Amino acid sequence: MRNTFGNLFALTTFGESHGPAIGGVVDGMPAGIDIDVDFIQSELNRRRPGQSKLTTSRNEADQVELLSGVFEGKSTGTPIGFVVRNANQHSKDYDNMRGLFRPSHADYTYYNKYGLRDHRGGGRSSARITLARVVGGALAKLALRQMGVTISAYVSQVGDIALEKDYRLYDLSNTENNDVRCPDEEQAERMAQLILETKNAGDTIGGVVTCVIKGCPVGVGEPEFDKLHARLGYAMLSINAAKGFEIGDGFDLVGHKGSEVNDVFVSDEGQVSTLTNHSGGIQGGISNGQDIFFRVAFKPVATVLMEQDTIEVDGTPTTFAARGRHDSCVVPRAVPIVEAMAAMVLMDNLAMAGTRIDNDGE
Amino acid sequence: MRNTFGNLFALTTFGESHGPAIGGVVDGMPAGIDIDVDFIQSELNRRRPGQSKLTTSRNEADQVELLSGVFEGKSTGTPIGFVVRNANQHSKDYDNMRGLFRPSHADYTYYNKYGLRDHRGGGRSSARITLARVVGGALAKLALRQMGVTISAYVSQVGDIALEKDYRLYDLSNTENNDVRCPDEEQAERMAQLILETKNAGDTIGGVVTCVIKGCPVGVGEPEFDKLHARLGYAMLSINAAKGFEIGDGFDLVGHKGSEVNDVFVSDEGQVSTLTNHSGGIQGGISNGQDIFFRVAFKPVATVLMEQDTIEVDGTPTTFAARGRHDSCVVPRAVPIVEAMAAMVLMDNLAMAGTRIDNDGE
Amino acid sequence: MRNTFGNLFALTTFGESHGPAIGGVVDGMPAGIDIDVDFIQSELNRRRPGQSKLTTSRNEADQVELLSGVFEGKSTGTPIGFVVRNANQHSKDYDNMRGLFRPSHADYTYYNKYGLRDHRGGGRSSARITLARVVGGALAKLALRQMGVTISAYVSQVGDIALEKDYRLYDLSNTENNDVRCPDEEQAERMAQLILETKNAGDTIGGVVTCVIKGCPVGVGEPEFDKLHARLGYAMLSINAAKGFEIGDGFDLVGHKGSEVNDVFVSDEGQVSTLTNHSGGIQGGISNGQDIFFRVAFKPVATVLMEQDTIEVDGTPTTFAARGRHDSCVVPRAVPIVEAMAAMVLMDNLAMAGTRIDNDGE
Amino acid sequence: MRNTFGNLFALTTFGESHGPAIGGVVDGMPAGIDIDVDFIQSELNRRRPGQSKLTTSRNEADQVELLSGVFEGKSTGTPIGFVVRNANQHSKDYDNMRGLFRPSHADYTYYNKYGLRDHRGGGRSSARITLARVVGGALAKLALRQMGVTISAYVSQVGDIALEKDYRLYDLSNTENNDVRCPDEEQAERMAQLILETKNAGDTIGGVVTCVIKGCPVGVGEPEFDKLHARLGYAMLSINAAKGFEIGDGFDLVGHKGSEVNDVFVSDEGQVSTLTNHSGGIQGGISNGQDIFFRVAFKPVATVLMEQDTIEVDGTPTTFAARGRHDSCVVPRAVPIVEAMAAMVLMDNLAMAGTRIDNDGE
Repeated sequence: MRNTFGNLFALTTFGESHGPAIGGVVDGMPAGIDIDVDFIQSELNRRRPGQSKLTTSRNEADQVELLSGVFEGKSTGTPIGFVVRNANQHSKDYDNMRGLFRPSHADYTYYNKYGLRDHRGGGRSSARITLARVVGGALAKLALRQMGVTISAYVSQVGDIALEKDYRLYDLSNTENNDVRCPDEEQAERMAQLILETKNAGDTIGGVVTCVIKGCPVGVGEPEFDKLHARLGYAMLSINAAKGFEIGDGFDLVGHKGSEVNDVFVSDEGQVSTLTNHSGGIQGGISNGQDIFFRVAFKPVATVLMEQDTIEVDGTPTTFAARGRHDSCVVPRAVPIVEAMAAMVLMDNLAMAGTRIDNDGE
Repeated sequence: MRNTFGNLFALTTFGESHGPAIGGVVDGMPAGIDIDVDFIQSELNRRRPGQSKLTTSRNEADQVELLSGVFEGKSTGTPIGFVVRNANQHSKDYDNMRGLFRPSHADYTYYNKYGLRDHRGGGRSSARITLARVVGGALAKLALRQMGVTISAYVSQVGDIALEKDYRLYDLSNTENNDVRCPDEEQAERMAQLILETKNAGDTIGGVVTCVIKGCPVGVGEPEFDKLHARLGYAMLSINAAKGFEIGDGFDLVGHKGSEVNDVFVSDEGQVSTLTNHSGGIQGGISNGQDIFFRVAFKPVATVLMEQDTIEVDGTPTTFAARGRHDSCVVPRAVPIVEAMAAMVLMDNLAMAGTRIDNDGE
Repeated sequence: MRNTFGNLFALTTFGESHGPAIGGVVDGMPAGIDIDVDFIQSELNRRRPGQSKLTTSRNEADQVELLSGVFEGKSTGTPIGFVVRNANQHSKDYDNMRGLFRPSHADYTYYNKYGLRDHRGGGRSSARITLARVVGGALAKLALRQMGVTISAYVSQVGDIALEKDYRLYDLSNTENNDVRCPDEEQAERMAQLILETKNAGDTIGGVVTCVIKGCPVGVGEPEFDKLHARLGYAMLSINAAKGFEIGDGFDLVGHKGSEVNDVFVSDEGQVSTLTNHSGGIQGGISNGQDIFFRVAFKPVATVLMEQDTIEVDGTPTTFAARGRHDSCVVPRAVPIVEAMAAMVLMDNLAMAGTRIDNDGE
Repeated sequence: MRNTFGNLFALTTFGESHGPAIGGVVDGMPAGIDIDVDFIQSELNRRRPGQSKLTTSRNEADQVELLSGVFEGKSTGTPIGFVVRNANQHSKDYDNMRGLFRPSHADYTYYNKYGLRDHRGGGRSSARITLARVVGGALAKLALRQMGVTISAYVSQVGDIALEKDYRLYDLSNTENNDVRCPDEEQAERMAQLILETKNAGDTIGGVVTCVIKGCPVGVGEPEFDKLHARLGYAMLSINAAKGFEIGDGFDLVGHKGSEVNDVFVSDEGQVSTLTNHSGGIQGGISNGQDIFFRVAFKPVATVLMEQDTIEVDGTPTTFAARGRHDSCVVPRAVPIVEAMAAMVLMDNLAMAGTRIDNDGE
């Protein structure tokens, strides 16, 4: 299924950057969950453009409307349809894109795949369509909240400025206190500076988002292909501009010996835990009850304001300089998207874990 | 689907390390492909234990038997069932595992998920079951070969010993010339040395596999959730011991400006290509006709021969030292598995790209 | 997937009878199809309530709005989201349903499955939600039209009044000439009479819809579980009030000998056909190029205006007499729904038939 | 997925009539079920050829071997692979089929779909491959048995000889007492006579199988597309030679008024039931706790021993008379297959019903 994410908790999305609306359907929401529409809207606001001087100036209210699946404030178990109308479109800004392929954009591949494309604002390849993911994720979070599971993402790197320390050493409740969404105020300041300098130069810069899941019960994830971290990796790599993923200590484990990084089990009055957590809370693809954490690498977005060489649709060489309103660094706005995707992966796998029919009967 | 990989080209697997057999079903193999059984067996031989002094001494013939879907040497379009019998089992070596949870293994999570487990050799969590993936991948490769697509993986890092240069600067046909499967003979020698030292110490070490796909047509991959690199990442992260994935320049892109790493399109007599390939051959989730390349990080395997602390099923503290035959470094044997998973992802996505019904009719 | 129909051409729906809107997402629409919005609306008008004196007097404009996937009048290959707002709701009519279970309705089963329900107008179990199917089907028809495939359904039985003759002996272009949607004017008149009498008595009556597909190419349908008629049967039986399905001569074949009903192949200048078509155009689950035809049985709808015994949620005996606006016979309005489901099954299976990758290369 | 049935309890099959083996993989079997291999074999024996004078004389032991997923007599929750070797093949009997298309067989459609086919014994279109369904169904039955759900099918019609009475009026434990598998001894005798006469004439005859499910809990089935009876219809119509399906009173409901066939709820000390069961135990697509029953129509098999007209692959007219060993009436052997498919549909939908995550937590 091309535009559906998940199996048992599934989000199907639609919409283009400059079409009438972006929306989707969440199927598999458990019945009886309190549907807090203000919370869903607040999650959308974390992703919305124009929220700070670090982000694109496209100013969209991004008001979500739920169309079904809720009765007297509670989910009914039926699908939840939703739409967000597009409003502040400057389609004219994109007229110069119609006949050419922007470097490192999806223009060329879409055109070859479909034979035509909606070039305005990137059409469906625009990062704007991730707002449907945020709505799906917000619904997932409402259900997870009732189960005691929390998800916290933050910016851990912008360009070469990286947080040195482990997530356990930061107070993640500080993440939303600055525009960068970095829990270390000092580094956040430096990151913001770098983003603004980059923006002023008409250029873009990459970054890393780290995400931590607390409270996930033991036994979530399927052992063979649908390992929990494989599903998380798939989800994260499907986000626009994501180029890398690592679970637990990830690439850093390569240089270590097994004897150094094995996570030893201990039991304290029947409560099993591990002394260390290099595995990132998942063993054999299944959650072990410890914190799940992972990192996602984002490339610098392709839209720069400098003039670049490229070709027209017929192959003629040309040059292109972007107009319009663009982000210089995606990671501050990617934070709620990473959380949303993680929330949906968890809900989907929790439902799968719930399929183990009780056969104790008699 | 828990034990099925792929949608249109799909592999379903079964089997445990110490059960009667490991096998699977490949569904969606195109009709009319020449089924070269010797090639399938040779791929299995690349993965098989006991092939060199670097790998476990478990000696298995791993002889594959195809049970259906082939008629007079060609695929018929019907599913191809296959089995590989287990033979050289030393189940007794694992008796001491029955009542405890090995550190960083799947013992604990399986036990909690299912309430019981086949502890012998890790049961279904054993890396031995990846042989079914190699058979599926070999079938995919036979079909890809007829389309001119090739897949070459190699070991690019063991512990701290890493290849410095880009894949384009190595002759990948050298990969199979040494036991490590590294195309740089000198570094291969050093890597082999490190693996043997580690083995002699009863310890294990991590590594990285790099993979390159050449000849993939433009337009493969779905734009929203099923981006080609998201599917590749999912596939790779589902391999035992894999902890990280990056496409193209991956995590290295984080520190760069957009103006530095955008891939500029050029056209030479109608043949479109990009001057650079930081993207790794995929833009907007869809192949652009350039080489696709990615890297997969593998942790050191959890089974070390030193004594480690752990707990019994009831929580009682105990110690554990592995017996049996184990690899000290998985990456040499992971090379054919990485290739196999990549081949299956491609076949699945090529089939999906083939679903765009021609409507020019009349 | 609970609220998604199809795999490669897939409709996901949402909405309740008395919620804000009903809608859905069509995923897998081929790119480049002319999107004739007037046609989609005209299909909805065939299903809409209040269209004739035979149907419920609930008067809804049922105006469809497409929200994505269309650019300059053509499909782009991206998902097509759509909504139809609910307007003419008389939710008060249903207040007496809140605390009880109507006989032969889904009230009891929904309540037990989810623990709560939107009782207004039946919520999601209302036949009103089939309008999303009609929109999906209309999009499928637009694509099929460009391939030369046509689908024609008609009412072949109401109560005991049944058409005696084979579909080939009627002019199906007459179907829309009367309110019953029966191509035999005389029988249509009698059927209309029966429906009105039944309506006046506050009762309901069943019926049969026959459907004919012309122009389906050879080779559509999968041989094992996804036989084309199995998919059609699944689709039809998912329509509200459908209780039976038969392909070709169906139940009538039971009483015949093989020698009487085998369809003999003949070839006329390379054009293969069968002398008879008892099989209904499908052999071994795969279309053979002949007309595909099938019949669907609909029970009398459960909502009658007479007083009936039933129970309250807590089990207390009570009586219930429906208020509100209801159909006395669903089959006239089921005709476009049957066509819509058939169109979507065909598009899905045509896409699957398109997955057979060409491997002639080299 | 072409050769997979089900989503959460899923059977993937492979094999051809004259290949080395037929087999499959059952994925989603709950852990902890007692795996009674003798029972699985006994189910296969009910389907196996050569079991009585009414069936084909192909004599196959049809010995099943389980290859995985079972440990110390219990299911482990991992996939269960199995194979049944083909033995008694008379491939030569089919040499005359190679170049022609048998009337009403899948030869023509397979050939057109795939461009080649294994003609021996019908290849994958042979009814022999249903034995994999019987194994999957037997495993499903073992799990259902532990939940108190039972499934009983029987032959209710052969040619024009039909049981007149309702299933409640027969003792279904008599079904296996005769070769026809009909619980009415007298009618069974007449049916057997008809089958033998038909066999002696070299002809074939159709029939009907009725199936009853007892003990299904309330709430199984999904409300929109995956209605329980739609899944059952899909499953049954995928069986070779099946041409019709009806749930509850089915086609017979067409001629009735709603007031006559509504099923009125009553409550007896909190135990809700319905006074009548015209619905067949399913309302709004969801089980209501009453008996589920349905009927499946089977056409006469296409293989008759008389000479028939047909064409060769190139269109040349020719004649064909079957050799080999064939059934004259499939319904006695279809009984265990119908039960097997019903069992798998139930397991799949029970697992889906189990996905409703408990959110009462805190």
